[in-house]
Order: sequence, then C-alpha cells, then structure tokens
Amino acid sequence: MLGKKLIVQKYGGTSVGTKERIMAVAERAVKTKRQNNGVVLVVSAMAGETDRLIRMAGEMHENPPERELDMLLSSGERISAALTAMAIESLGERAVSLTGRQVGIITDSMHTRAKIEQVKAERVRQAIDDGMIAVIAGFQGITVDLSDVTTLGRGGSDLTAVAVAAALKADLCEIYTDVDGVYTADPNVVKNARKLDKISYDEMLELASLGAKVLQSRSVEFASKYEVPLVVRSSFSGEPGTLVMKEDKDMENVVVSGIACDKNQVKLTVMGVPDKPGIAAIIFKAVAEKGIVVDMIVQNVSADGSVADISFTVPKTDSKGALEITQSVADSLGAKTVIIKDDIAKISIVGVGMRIHSGAAARMFQTLSDNNINILMISTSEIKISCVIEGKYSELAQRELHEAFGLGKSG
Amino acid sequence: MLGKKLIVQKYGGTSVGTKERIMAVAERAVKTKRQNNGVVLVVSAMAGETDRLIRMAGEMHENPPERELDMLLSSGERISAALTAMAIESLGERAVSLTGRQVGIITDSMHTRAKIEQVKAERVRQAIDDGMIAVIAGFQGITVDLSDVTTLGRGGSDLTAVAVAAALKADLCEIYTDVDGVYTADPNVVKNARKLDKISYDEMLELASLGAKVLQSRSVEFASKYEVPLVVRSSFSGEPGTLVMKEDKDMENVVVSGIACDKNQVKLTVMGVPDKPGIAAIIFKAVAEKGIVVDMIVQNVSADGSVADISFTVPKTDSKGALEITQSVADSLGAKTVIIKDDIAKISIVGVGMRIHSGAAARMFQTLSDNNINILMISTSEIKISCVIEGKYSELAQRELHEAFGLGKSG
Repeated sequence: MLGKKLIVQKYGGTSVGTKERIMAVAERAVKTKRQNNGVVLVVSAMAGETDRLIRMAGEMHENPPERELDMLLSSGERISAALTAMAIESLGERAVSLTGRQVGIITDSMHTRAKIEQVKAERVRQAIDDGMIAVIAGFQGITVDLSDVTTLGRGGSDLTAVAVAAALKADLCEIYTDVDGVYTADPNVVKNARKLDKISYDEMLELASLGAKVLQSRSVEFASKYEVPLVVRSSFSGEPGTLVMKEDKDMENVVVSGIACDKNQVKLTVMGVPDKPGIAAIIFKAVAEKGIVVDMIVQNVSADGSVADISFTVPKTDSKGALEITQSVADSLGAKTVIIKDDIAKISIVGVGMRIHSGAAARMFQTLSDNNINILMISTSEIKISCVIEGKYSELAQRELHEAFGLGKSG
Repeated sequence: MLGKKLIVQKYGGTSVGTKERIMAVAERAVKTKRQNNGVVLVVSAMAGETDRLIRMAGEMHENPPERELDMLLSSGERISAALTAMAIESLGERAVSLTGRQVGIITDSMHTRAKIEQVKAERVRQAIDDGMIAVIAGFQGITVDLSDVTTLGRGGSDLTAVAVAAALKADLCEIYTDVDGVYTADPNVVKNARKLDKISYDEMLELASLGAKVLQSRSVEFASKYEVPLVVRSSFSGEPGTLVMKEDKDMENVVVSGIACDKNQVKLTVMGVPDKPGIAAIIFKAVAEKGIVVDMIVQNVSADGSVADISFTVPKTDSKGALEITQSVADSLGAKTVIIKDDIAKISIVGVGMRIHSGAAARMFQTLSDNNINILMISTSEIKISCVIEGKYSELAQRELHEAFGLGKSG
C-alpha cells in the first residue's frame, strides 16, 4: 500500500446521464486505479431519472408518504451504480456496486432528509484491499436498525462522497460536476468571473449556503469537520478544478473570494407591531412550528418607540405557508398589516480576509449606492456580508461588486 | 382475526404497466382489505422496465456480471412496489413496500437464478397485524449473510408470491395476469379452448414445464409442496379464474385436462454410436457439464445391434453449445455424425385421469397418425404423454388432439 493514494470520485447526474458518459466515468476510474491508487466512486441517479420517479410518485399520491418516496428514489442511484460497475468490469478491472446499506451509511429515520450518524464502510475497505473499485450508490442510507432505506436530501450524493472519504481517511475527494470549479461569481452573470484554484471550507460553506449551487452545504460542513480535501472539477473538461481545503495564510491576503446571489427567498414584513419584549419570539416560534426556516431578520422601531416593523426572509417554496401563519399571528398581536415581497435577491460577498481586513462592508454599500441600488436588509457574519436588494438589480449588483473587489480575470 | 382471511395477490408486469393499472391494483387491494381480509401484494417490475434495464446492461458489458445484474434488475420491482404502496395510501389505507431483504426472502447466492432457502416474513406479518397492506417487491431475495441482492430468475415474482403465501399460511394466493386462467389449450391456436375451473398441482406443473406460460413451474412445485391454494385470474376482467389445488376425485373423471406445446427446443441426433454400455453416460455427462439441461432422450439400436442412434432435445438457446460439445464427444467415440433439427414442437397431453384410465397414449398416436403427422420422439410420465413432431404441424396437432379428447366448449 506504500505510496498508494485513496481517492473518492463523485459523479453527478449529468456525468452519468448517458451510456457514453457512464463509460467515460468508468475509464477515468480505471485510469486512476492503474496509476496505483485505491478508487471509490459515488454516483448519482442518471440525469432525469429522479425527476421521472418523482413525477410518477406524484401521479400516485398528491403527497406521497416519505418512506415510500425514499424506497422509490433510492432505486435511481442503485441503477447507475450497477451500470457503472458493469462498465468498469468491461474495461478489465473488477468492480462492485454497493448500496447505502451495504456501505453501512447509518442515518436517523427522517425520511427524504435523513442525517448521517455513522459510516462503517467495511465493505468498501474490503473491496479496495481486494483490488476492486467500489461503486457506491449515492444519496442513500439505512436506518440504525437496518430496517428502512433513507435518502439524504437534495445534493445528498455529495454528502455520501465526503462522508465515505472521511470514514476511509481518503487522500482526496473529487466532486465531478458540469462546471470547471468554484468561481468568483456566477459566470453566466459576470462575464469575467474567475475560477478559484483554492478556497477555504468556511468560504465554500458560506457560498454554498448563499446560493452557489456547485456544492451542497451539508457536505462542505462535513468535509470541514473531518478535514477531507475536496476538489470540485468538471467531468467533461480536463481542467484541474478548485481545491476546497483548510484555510491558509495566502487566503487571508484576499478580502473577498467570491460573490453569491440567492433569488429563491421572499421577504415578509409585519408592520406596526406593538414594541414589547417577546413579540419577535411569538412570531418566529409560530413560523418555526410550521417547519419553515427563517434566514434573515431585521427589526426597526418607530420614531416614538411605540411600534416596530419586523422583516424576515423565508424560502420561496414556503411563502404561502409563512404568509398564512404570520398573518394569523399578526392579527392576534394587533399588528397593522403583513406585506410580502417576492422579487428580491440576496447578494453576498464572502472572504476569510474580512477577518483581518476592514472596510469590506463600507465598500459593498458604497458600490450598491453608486448604482442607485437600495438595500432592503443587511446581515453579516465574520466572513460574509449579505444584502437583500430588489430582484431586478441582482445581475447589475453582482457585476459591479465583482469589479469593485477586483475579482475579475487580470487578462 | 376470527373469520378474517389472509390473501396474497400477485400482479405481473402488464398489470402494473401504467399509472392507471397500478391504481386499479391498489383499488382491488383496498376492496379486498375492506372485506375484512389481510392483504399482501407481490408486484413485478412495470412492463418494459426489466427489458429496458437489461438493454442498458448490455450496452455497458457484453456479458454483465451477474451480481451487478441482480442489483440492477431488482430496482424495477422496488419501483413498482413503492408506487403501488403510494397508490394504496392515496385511497386511504395504510401500506408499506418491502424488498426481498425486508421480507426476509433468504436465498442461495446463485445470482440471476437464486433458490429460496427460507422465507421469514416477520415484517409482513407485523404489517398485517398493524392493519396495513404489505406490498412486496417480487423476483428478489437476499443471500444468507444478508450481504447481496439476488434474483429468482424468469417468472420469479410468482415464486415470491407462493413462497410468501406458504410462509404466512395464507388462505389463498391469487396470481393476476393478462389471461383469464388456465385453458385446455392455447386459445390463440385452438379456437374453442375452454378455461378450466380447477386443475391439480401435478397437472399444472406438467403444463407449466411443457410450455404453458401462465405460471412458472418452480412456483407450482412450491405451491404443491406447501399446499398453497393458487388462483390464476385476469387483472382486467372480473372472471373467477382457475383454481390450482390438491387433486380431488372429480379430476380423475377426466382423462386429459389440457394440451401444451413447446416450440423452444431443438433435437440433436448422434448417428452410428457403437452400442456399448456407458456411451450414453459419456455423452450426457459432457452436455451436463456445460450446464445444458437435456429434456427428452430416445435411443434406437440398429437391426444388427452393432450401432445405435441417440436423440435428445435441449432448449433452443443452448443449441450452439450443445452441438459443439456433442460433436466433439461424437468424434471421440467414433460416431458417424451429429444431426441437429430445430423446426420441432413438443406436443403434450396432461391429465391425472391417465393414472386410472388407459388408452390415452393410443388415442394420441392414432390422432396424429390420422393427420399424417410423424412422431419423432415419445416420452411419458404417469400423468402426461409428450410427442416431438415437426414444427409445421404443431397447430394442427393441438387442434386435433383437443377435439379427440373432447376438451372443447360444449356450446
């Protein structure tokens, strides 16, 4: 085993979307193996397959039982894992496909959004020791008593890859996707967006939470916790991608590493709430009890201090439920009215450099102001600043901030 | 539980082939349940799904590894089981889909053709006790150490249903298919073929082995062994179907119950084999070692007793392999030549009445002779007589024998 590296490669739905692409995945795995590495693959369902299954479920039941949904959806990854294993065998290497249960990905029993409690990975280790390539069906686990299949939620295959890499103490976890890596901004919006060679876990986590779709945030959290070196790269180009790793000195020299934009939130404002202690608690307890996750919260008190306006954002998909419950709470509190605004965008700048360099917030606000973009809400953390603005300005704001923080390609 | 019946219903691929049909299956299950019965469903993959998966496997590997094939194909039944459970829930009854592992269908590890060693069915029993409808993914099992998924071979879902019915000591196992029941002959060939109200296990077993496709023969064997009352009926018409049960007195009054025809065999003849003891053993040992199953065997000795001709039949799919090995053995034995004939049909008459009524064989041979149909081989058992004839006469022979044994509708 001396000198041998253990590499986990994760392939998304597009990367295994056709027989030719599955064959390309198999070829890369075989090549990596023949360079004297241990290789573990994690595959998603073939592109379109999960949607097909969800559509069929919707035809059977308005609101399909989640346990059955997990049984159904987990089949998609089993299919691509088995096909990928066959493709590898056809190239002359031995392979074995493994389900969540066979890998020993033990989760809680929250169907459709289960949390990983333990990864045993004994069979994966055994397969590698036997000189085989293990092909793991992503996105799925099994309950603690080994009775029922669970799934890990959207982007769950990323999490499978990182969790397995952590359990195996892999040297590298490569996330193959349809983009070249992590960019300073969305290249579809900002023309001269630049691919980052490396980024810290913390920054990646903020970017993922803030709307950058390249990695699922739970998997970044997991990678950070277990210090799994992650690479995000394209399965179509041969480009080296972006390394997501522990923060180093270099990273602090840059104030802002990237810009993210999230257009999937709505803003609710409860106007004229009596400004008494405990009012905010009443509102947000009621919203939380509906299972709705609140992101940003801002409260303004009126000039005379008698009433306050409370604004907060929730995911667009929860807007109807959030409005109903907020309206009913507002009525009982004697608030004036509830306003919902759905054409908003949350623009964020992220960088570990903010920890030691000041002035990032001021420069962000100034840039928006220079472009006549009104800021509706502000929220900050140690390494990010988010502003909610009107949705129609989202592209302009991204381009101007990208320019203002000098993120573009030098060429 | 007093007065409550336990009913296992098995639905084939056509019966769950579309969302409308899955919904119809759910409706029948719910209706059966609400008539105060315990209900267990066993479902096949949706029609076309297994073929789709096999085609994809073939695109990945010329000869896909069987373990991976099982992982792949078992997904088809998981999908239809989950969808059926959802459909049942949408109708207001509780349902749970269960895989081979979850049911506890323990098999040997012969992938793609595993044999059932044990059926635990604890979770099925629990589900029924909890007032739920259990929906079992057919065709699949799990190895003894619970490590790998296996499949039970073609028609395996019938076997799943019968094995589960046996384990649960179910009152009835209904096999829903696209025909109304078991017929005296193939209705596509014999216009006035009649549906049988009941048939004995032994007769059904012979018919299934002899080419009647309505039930898989291993499942009939299993039903017979554990005396599971089977009903074969249509999932589209409301007809009562055919009851497959223990032989009773009534059945013996009929000499012949049905006629079967198998056109999927070829006949090999080794000409001019030295007629010495042990020659047949040498030939059939060699064929068996290739995993080829020989059906009928006939040996003729020449007038002077010096040489013999040995004829036997094998499945059409094995004809190439059988010819090669037979040719090579024939050469080493100094036999004259090997002839293969593939345009043959095996016509069989089946009936438990043959045990006590004589003359069936004579009437069969006479009928064929009257129609100038030459008999190439004959084989008999206690309750059946099979004749190999030229393939082109197969339809004629079925019609004439059906008439000769008075099997047609009286009307």
